[in-house]
Amino acid sequence: MDGVAGRARLLALDWGSTHLRAYLLGADGVRLDERDADAGASTMNGDARAYEAALEDVAGHWLAARPDLPIVACGMVGSQHGWREAPYAACPAGAADLAGALARVDAGGRTVAIVPGVSCRGEDGVPDVIRGEETQIVGALAMQPDLAAASTLVLPGTHSKWASVEDGRIVRFSTYMTGELFALLRAHSVLGRLMQGEDAPLEQGFDAGVRAAAGSAGLTHQLFAVRTLGLTGELAPAALSGYLSGLLIGSEIDAALRARAPDGAAAPRPLSVALVGAPALTALYERALALRGVTSVRRLDNTAPAGLWRLAAAAGLITDLEGSP
Amino acid sequence: MDGVAGRARLLALDWGSTHLRAYLLGADGVRLDERDADAGASTMNGDARAYEAALEDVAGHWLAARPDLPIVACGMVGSQHGWREAPYAACPAGAADLAGALARVDAGGRTVAIVPGVSCRGEDGVPDVIRGEETQIVGALAMQPDLAAASTLVLPGTHSKWASVEDGRIVRFSTYMTGELFALLRAHSVLGRLMQGEDAPLEQGFDAGVRAAAGSAGLTHQLFAVRTLGLTGELAPAALSGYLSGLLIGSEIDAALRARAPDGAAAPRPLSVALVGAPALTALYERALALRGVTSVRRLDNTAPAGLWRLAAAAGLITDLEGSP
Repeated sequence: MDGVAGRARLLALDWGSTHLRAYLLGADGVRLDERDADAGASTMNGDARAYEAALEDVAGHWLAARPDLPIVACGMVGSQHGWREAPYAACPAGAADLAGALARVDAGGRTVAIVPGVSCRGEDGVPDVIRGEETQIVGALAMQPDLAAASTLVLPGTHSKWASVEDGRIVRFSTYMTGELFALLRAHSVLGRLMQGEDAPLEQGFDAGVRAAAGSAGLTHQLFAVRTLGLTGELAPAALSGYLSGLLIGSEIDAALRARAPDGAAAPRPLSVALVGAPALTALYERALALRGVTSVRRLDNTAPAGLWRLAAAAGLITDLEGSP
Repeated sequence: MDGVAGRARLLALDWGSTHLRAYLLGADGVRLDERDADAGASTMNGDARAYEAALEDVAGHWLAARPDLPIVACGMVGSQHGWREAPYAACPAGAADLAGALARVDAGGRTVAIVPGVSCRGEDGVPDVIRGEETQIVGALAMQPDLAAASTLVLPGTHSKWASVEDGRIVRFSTYMTGELFALLRAHSVLGRLMQGEDAPLEQGFDAGVRAAAGSAGLTHQLFAVRTLGLTGELAPAALSGYLSGLLIGSEIDAALRARAPDGAAAPRPLSVALVGAPALTALYERALALRGVTSVRRLDNTAPAGLWRLAAAAGLITDLEGSP
């Protein structure tokens, strides 16, 4: 028997739209091994055999050695057009709520448990959803338990999420299309024409963009400055991507802080913020938050494996194995 | 001699990024004939011979009959990468200022006079520019002289412009990337996926989008509702384009009205607004303005020919012709 697989307790799958990340987790959720694949849910067309084949491809060697290994997955694999829909759990939702609502799908005799997404309704009456991020949040709380009482978790990305956690549960959250807008505007809009290539560092111009976002002129106007500042030479071509990034991230942060300010107060109450995501991105958010006076910020990298472990444990999927250390 | 060309006084060219519209204008600027071509400035790569060939192609038959006809052009033909740069005139700028700053380029022995764009600096210190719209504004003021004293001219489009006119001159303006964002988000973003085709009418869902834009949750968050309202079925697929359009136009209008409100006032002072552009688009803006309580609104269609006529006259290009009626 494969030595690493022999010590495994859980196969944890972070299965998003574009990527599948498989983690082999041992006692206490320690990462024993991991593999990535491009087999994102968006490439599967909802075809169960395609999902099964992708699982076999990424984790077959582990599962051959350990047919009994429990499997838990989160992300778009559980969407309406995924492998098996895991309907959204309503806020407030904590680990116990999510673990009690796992969907299950058969994969050639094995069972894959799928974590539900979470839904809420904003103060504006509009519904909002997360799928995958709930598991990252559960993981962050497992890794840093002092966040559970009351904190704001920010998960930057294509669709950034700001979640309020109270008493260990997600009580509300909001989505911001920041990353998608950045990519679209850089690739397809008039704003991208004067920019340097995609490898331009985002730090240059970033602070100026964050500051500009604080004005009241409206984002659809502020964005045009990326063009005019470039045309007039007031910003160097190398600084235009960073300025755009600062505008969009600053706009997101301002809206999110406004939503968290006590009624009528100009400034938000002191926030305990945890940024969860890739270090290059959370560093930009930390920088922008500092420009807004929010300095009680910590940064966490990949919390999905810890979340999957915590949810599998709460669902009773992880049992003591004979002979385990 | 061609009868129509014989009565012509001016060849007026509205030469934008994507289209060239040529108008043969007679006494008092009356439209005698017109032709459109796809020969937009963005397809010319700054090549003078390409511009000359496009002019010959669209207007050669008129010019053969009337080699003496004065020619005036506005739009991206005068940009940095156009046929001949007509540098931006600074605000405040009226017809006399623009007519005094025409650039000139030789086209096979004929002279084409090119109208400069206009630049200004917003209260946020950021530069802004228009090119082509200054001529539409001059045309609107020529067609409806009561607008000249004090009015707000709104030119919706890919890059919407809000211009303040005082004493017949453009004193300040702001650009909003409303149309470009709408096209990008519909074609390339996650928001387009649930939508019906591009021929879906924009009226359905539009008012709800305009109302949603009035909230304080931030545009990058509000946009995501196009997805969630579609996912939950709270908006029909046919209503999603209209909702997106309402969000973006509502956001533009709110920002522009905010900029025009007296300091500290919640509501803007009564505005005299003229919407200039394609009827289907100005109708949507009129509808959104009404939802914000702005009802003193008039709509004008294509004002560029009137603007080109007015500027050519102010520059002394139009002379009385022997034998003209």
